[in-house]
Amino acid sequence: MKSFRKELWFQTPTRRAFVNITPQVDEALRESGIREGLILVNAMHISASVFINDDEAGLHHDFEVFLEKLAPHAPISQYQHNETGEDNADAHIKRQIMGREVVVAVTEGKMDFGPWEQIFYGEFDGRRRKRVLVKIIGE
Amino acid sequence: MKSFRKELWFQTPTRRAFVNITPQVDEALRESGIREGLILVNAMHISASVFINDDEAGLHHDFEVFLEKLAPHAPISQYQHNETGEDNADAHIKRQIMGREVVVAVTEGKMDFGPWEQIFYGEFDGRRRKRVLVKIIGE
Amino acid sequence: MKSFRKELWFQTPTRRAFVNITPQVDEALRESGIREGLILVNAMHISASVFINDDEAGLHHDFEVFLEKLAPHAPISQYQHNETGEDNADAHIKRQIMGREVVVAVTEGKMDFGPWEQIFYGEFDGRRRKRVLVKIIGE
Repeated sequence: MKSFRKELWFQTPTRRAFVNITPQVDEALRESGIREGLILVNAMHISASVFINDDEAGLHHDFEVFLEKLAPHAPISQYQHNETGEDNADAHIKRQIMGREVVVAVTEGKMDFGPWEQIFYGEFDGRRRKRVLVKIIGE
Repeated sequence: MKSFRKELWFQTPTRRAFVNITPQVDEALRESGIREGLILVNAMHISASVFINDDEAGLHHDFEVFLEKLAPHAPISQYQHNETGEDNADAHIKRQIMGREVVVAVTEGKMDFGPWEQIFYGEFDGRRRKRVLVKIIGE
Repeated sequence: MKSFRKELWFQTPTRRAFVNITPQVDEALRESGIREGLILVNAMHISASVFINDDEAGLHHDFEVFLEKLAPHAPISQYQHNETGEDNADAHIKRQIMGREVVVAVTEGKMDFGPWEQIFYGEFDGRRRKRVLVKIIGE
């Protein structure tokens, strides 16, 4: 069994953003040389997500509206977590809805995807350097 | 390390449906001959889910009501994604809530499940042929 | 390839609770002797979750408020599932929002975590003995 590890770094200019990271994960897979196995891609921060969905700007707007309605950022005083001096309780909740991680099959050296699957980094408390972990096991 | 891959195909007669796919995943595991490892089961389409919960019709009704309240299908004009000519923005959001994938342990040749765990395909934009990927690694 | 399996048992005194299980998963990893691979940690019951987020009591309160607003426990008659004699339909829905499982990378014998990642057992229908599965594969 082989294993491979790589960190991807992000600093989004806005508090919230969706970034298509499929090319970076593809590159990590090529570097690994692994042909059959599993890829884990996870946010290493608890106010960010990794998820798979469509690379369509309108849908990303719809996700933003949906998440902000479910767990609004303001007023920040509505969350006990923010009494610690933070203002990101909503980001922890939004990340929980969108998920921490995806696991992707590797078949014949490629990510085994349906026609529209793309991997996104979902940032809910940005404007600082944060990481995603790519771990690949297989052979 | 051994690996095994199989696609399951679905065409639900209704827009939304929950289908118990545990027997098909069990059969894939038997075909693989793998005794210890991990199974990844994921929707290959971004308007569908794979998840684990109870095989109880009343609960599936409750999931349907819950999801339709959070992200209603109509009016379709409430979503920017639908300005592309699609009418399935709600399906992308519902899939995100219910999840894309499950990972299941394989122990002594069987799915290592608690007493009530069953795997479901959750369709949110059906009436056409769509796929689920089963990937098993182990030995 | 090596594999390792362990069950963790819980009985929370309250209906709902969040329990930090990072030390128990760490101990399972040490027992396994696995240095590179993947850990799957999943609830074996369908009214409970395993998820990764912050070990901060205020945030756990915020999660509780958020989940109870989305899928209130009472009145129990609002859910068809409860017509079977159960009163836990809300717990099945809450578990679906928070997730069944996490997959964690193992690197150099340790869980490959960002600075604040902690693993939680999320109980939504407690006061009875329930299990979490830890399955580790690698070498």
